[in-house]
Amino acid sequence: MLLCDSGNTSMHFYDGSTHTYKQSVEEFDGLIDSCKVYYINVNPDLETTLQQMPNWINLQSYVNAEKYYDGMGIDRIMACEAVDEGIVIDAGSAITVDVMHQGVYGGGFICPGIHAMQASYANISSRLSNSFNFELDLDKMPKNTQDSISYGFLRLLYGEVMRHNKPIIITGGDARHLHKVFQHATVDELLIFKGMKQMIPKIASC
Amino acid sequence: MLLCDSGNTSMHFYDGSTHTYKQSVEEFDGLIDSCKVYYINVNPDLETTLQQMPNWINLQSYVNAEKYYDGMGIDRIMACEAVDEGIVIDAGSAITVDVMHQGVYGGGFICPGIHAMQASYANISSRLSNSFNFELDLDKMPKNTQDSISYGFLRLLYGEVMRHNKPIIITGGDARHLHKVFQHATVDELLIFKGMKQMIPKIASC
Repeated sequence: MLLCDSGNTSMHFYDGSTHTYKQSVEEFDGLIDSCKVYYINVNPDLETTLQQMPNWINLQSYVNAEKYYDGMGIDRIMACEAVDEGIVIDAGSAITVDVMHQGVYGGGFICPGIHAMQASYANISSRLSNSFNFELDLDKMPKNTQDSISYGFLRLLYGEVMRHNKPIIITGGDARHLHKVFQHATVDELLIFKGMKQMIPKIASC
Repeated sequence: MLLCDSGNTSMHFYDGSTHTYKQSVEEFDGLIDSCKVYYINVNPDLETTLQQMPNWINLQSYVNAEKYYDGMGIDRIMACEAVDEGIVIDAGSAITVDVMHQGVYGGGFICPGIHAMQASYANISSRLSNSFNFELDLDKMPKNTQDSISYGFLRLLYGEVMRHNKPIIITGGDARHLHKVFQHATVDELLIFKGMKQMIPKIASC
């Protein structure tokens, strides 16, 4: 059995126990035919190919979509499915933040990701073209440019997340960076796969 | 007497009482020689020209720079000079937020402006290419895409600003938009000019 979380540029695979690897969408040749591949996919160009492969099973149709909202990304839904109580931060090209109350979806919001925010400041002015200070003092209003932009991004995100007073779980490619700000959070790089894995008992096993 | 707040693309003039107008930097011919022009300028390409005009007086040298920090924009400083107690939001290409306690600068932070944030979301994914909902319910976690990005920008900014529990004064080209979120704030489009005007008694009058 394999799990696959397919994005716009890369496909992330997980063997369900220990091993994960990534493959670019461009390099994907579809030659995984030894067993079932349970997948989610946000790349419309890839969907037709995946649907034609008899051993690939799209988990999207097994989600109780009524729990979430129309247009919510399936990767974001799977991360939420893995959490019963808590606030889920998926830090990638965008940062999605979602609240789960006793298994019920409580809504969420989206910020641009670390790279996108850095680019946004740099586009406004070369004077704002700085990396973020993830060791920023969150209790002190800044008096220098690097901390001013770091605060304008990280402190505002921190304030909102902490306001919900729930366990925090961070996943996604930039999870380690955000962990410096949310020091008591749990980092779980397999969160989306955990949500996917929970769907499988609903289907015939591999 | 004229006051001039010179930016990277346009020069904003004020006659000190009622009349304001804008001129693009490109169109500027320097032919204002009837009286003194008190100015601030963030455009390095223009500075040499302005310095050569005998009736133009740069107010920057009259600011007590020690109150602020090295690298802080002179327009931002002038807005702060106009406020004794409060939180100053200047909503332009960037949104700067600065705290003043009894005339003392308490630090501040910078977010990308409305246009920059909208572009940032749109660059991440066409699904996030939405205008912001300034009538967003700030007390409710969103369950649709437009509100999710609006919340990720406006609610986070709102939460941080309100935390300081001070009078809020908004200035800048996007002040009217942000006023929908900060409904109890004062909008003062002349705030920078007010700060500049306060400097003038320190210099010989026009």
